[in-house]
Amino acid sequence: MARPDPSAVKTVATIGAGPIGAGWAAHFLARGYDVHAYIHSMDEEAAFRKILDTAWENLEELGLADGASRDRLKLSSDLKATMNGAEFVQESAPERIEIKQALYNQLSEFVAPDVVIASSTSGLPITEIQADCATASRTVVGHPFNPPYLLPLVEIVGGERTDASAVTWAKEFYEIAGKAPLVMKKEIPGFVATRLQEALWREALHMVANGEATPEDIDIALINGPAPRMAFQGQCMAFHVACGEGGMATNLDQFGPALKLPWTRLEAPELTQELRDRMVDGCNEIAGDRHFEDMAAERDRAIVGVLKAIRAAKS
Amino acid sequence: MARPDPSAVKTVATIGAGPIGAGWAAHFLARGYDVHAYIHSMDEEAAFRKILDTAWENLEELGLADGASRDRLKLSSDLKATMNGAEFVQESAPERIEIKQALYNQLSEFVAPDVVIASSTSGLPITEIQADCATASRTVVGHPFNPPYLLPLVEIVGGERTDASAVTWAKEFYEIAGKAPLVMKKEIPGFVATRLQEALWREALHMVANGEATPEDIDIALINGPAPRMAFQGQCMAFHVACGEGGMATNLDQFGPALKLPWTRLEAPELTQELRDRMVDGCNEIAGDRHFEDMAAERDRAIVGVLKAIRAAKS
Repeated sequence: MARPDPSAVKTVATIGAGPIGAGWAAHFLARGYDVHAYIHSMDEEAAFRKILDTAWENLEELGLADGASRDRLKLSSDLKATMNGAEFVQESAPERIEIKQALYNQLSEFVAPDVVIASSTSGLPITEIQADCATASRTVVGHPFNPPYLLPLVEIVGGERTDASAVTWAKEFYEIAGKAPLVMKKEIPGFVATRLQEALWREALHMVANGEATPEDIDIALINGPAPRMAFQGQCMAFHVACGEGGMATNLDQFGPALKLPWTRLEAPELTQELRDRMVDGCNEIAGDRHFEDMAAERDRAIVGVLKAIRAAKS
Repeated sequence: MARPDPSAVKTVATIGAGPIGAGWAAHFLARGYDVHAYIHSMDEEAAFRKILDTAWENLEELGLADGASRDRLKLSSDLKATMNGAEFVQESAPERIEIKQALYNQLSEFVAPDVVIASSTSGLPITEIQADCATASRTVVGHPFNPPYLLPLVEIVGGERTDASAVTWAKEFYEIAGKAPLVMKKEIPGFVATRLQEALWREALHMVANGEATPEDIDIALINGPAPRMAFQGQCMAFHVACGEGGMATNLDQFGPALKLPWTRLEAPELTQELRDRMVDGCNEIAGDRHFEDMAAERDRAIVGVLKAIRAAKS
C-alpha cells in the first residue's frame, strides 16, 4: 500500500476534546503541522481551547518547530469535513468499545485508505476496535503518556487485521513528529510503561494498607530517590552503570538472589474503605488548598525543565 | 540524652571509601561541614579522592554552601583519631554483619555517647548491626540513594535498642544538612524506595523473560513516560492531579478494579541463563562503546539538571 511519505505529512487529524485529544492537537500544532481537530460537539470547544492554551505555554518553552502556530488549527464537529485532507489520524474518543467501533466504521469511509489511523486507547484491544472497520489494515494503537503534549512516549501495536506496514509507518511518523515511539512485540494489557507503573503502584498501595508508609512517604521516596535518575537512564541502564565495570552481569549475579526475597507483595491489595481513605486523605493533605489545575501547571513546568535538563546533559 | 543541637553541628565523620562512603563525604563537604573521613587503608585514598572530585563538579553546579571546601576534609585510616570531635557519624562500611558489629563495638568507645551514628546499610537490620555496640541507643539506619551526593533521599529507622530521640535527631540533622529524610514507621526490607523500585524491576524482568520487551524498550518507556513526571510528583500525586477535581478518590473508584487485572506478574521470574543474557546483552548494546564512568558522569549531569529544574518549577 502506498502510504504518504512520513516526512512529507503536512496535515494531521485528531479526534477528541479531552486532555488526550486536545493534548495531541497541541503537540502536532507545536511540531508545525496543520491540525484538523474533530470534537463531538461544539459545546466542547471552550474546554478544548483551554487545554490547548495551557499546553502551548509549555510547548513554547520546550521550543516550537518552524512555522508552528495555533492558527493552523481547524476545529469542527463535522467528522467527514475534519478528516478531509488528513494524512494521519490520531483518535482519542471515549474508551467505550461500541463508540470506537462505530467511529472506525465511519473513518473507513472518510479517511483515504492509505492513511494510518492510530488509537490513543489505553485499555481496549485494537483487534476489537478495528472489528467493524472496512479498512482495518491501516489501524494501530498509538498510546501516549499523559500529558501527551509533553511526555514523548507513544506505544504502538497492531491488531489481528493490521498490516505490518502500518506499524512501521506509524513508528517513522511519530519519530519525525518529535515523539519517542516504542513498537510492542505483542499486544499485552498496559503495554510497557503502564505495566511498570502499575507494578510500582501496587507495592505503594500495599505499604499504605500495611501502615508502613503514607502517600506522602511514597512520593518523598520516589521524588528524592529513584525517579530523577530513572528520568534519564531508565532502570536497566541505571543498574548497569551503577555496577561499574561489571555492569548488568554483576547486578544480576550479585543481586539476582534478592529477587526471591519477599520485597514485593504479590497480588493486588484489597481496596478496602480504609485503604481508600488513607490514599485520598493523604493526597488531599499534600495538596492542601492548591487547586488541581495549579498543580498540573506546576507539574508541566517541572516536566519541561526535566526534559530540557536531560536534553542538555546528552549534548 | 543531651545531643548536640542539629543546627550547630560543624564536624561530621564518615566511614568508608566506596561510592557511598566517599559520596557522603562529598555531600557533607559541599554543605559546609568539616569532614573527618575514615578509610580502612590509605591504599584506598586515590579511589576515595576520585569519587570526591567527580562528585564535586556536580555539587558546585547544584550550589555549594557558604564556606564549603574540599580543604575541610581530614582523611585518615586511624579510626579513633577520625572519630575525635565528630558530632555525627555516617557509616558506610562493607555490607557484612560481622564487620559492622565489630566496628560499632569500637565506635561505642571512640564516639562521644551523645553523638548519633547512622548506617548506610541497604540490607542489614539495624537491630543486628547494633548488637555488640555498648551505646546502641544512638545508632540508626540512614540509608541514602545512589549517588548519595546528588539524590536527597535518606531513609531512617531505628532498631530494637535505638532511642526514639536518636531517630528524631537524625531526621532534623539530615534536613539541615540538605537531605530529604524519610522516617520509616517499621523496619521493612528495602525500606520504601527500594521496594518500589524492586516491584517495577521484577515486572521489567518478566517482560524481558517473556519476549514482550527488550531492556532498551523498558528504558525508553520509563524515560519518555512515567519517570519525568514521577521525578516531580511521585506517583500518588501524579494520579491525584491527573484525575482533576475528583483526585485520588476518582482514581481509586474508577481504576481500582483494574488492580485485579493481570497487569503485573506476581512472583519474581526465574533468573535463567537466557534471561540473564538478554538483560546483559541488551544493556551492553545500549552502552555501545561508552565506558561506565562516562555514562555515570552523564547521569550525574542529568540528575543535577533534573533537580535544578524541579527546584525552579517550585519557586
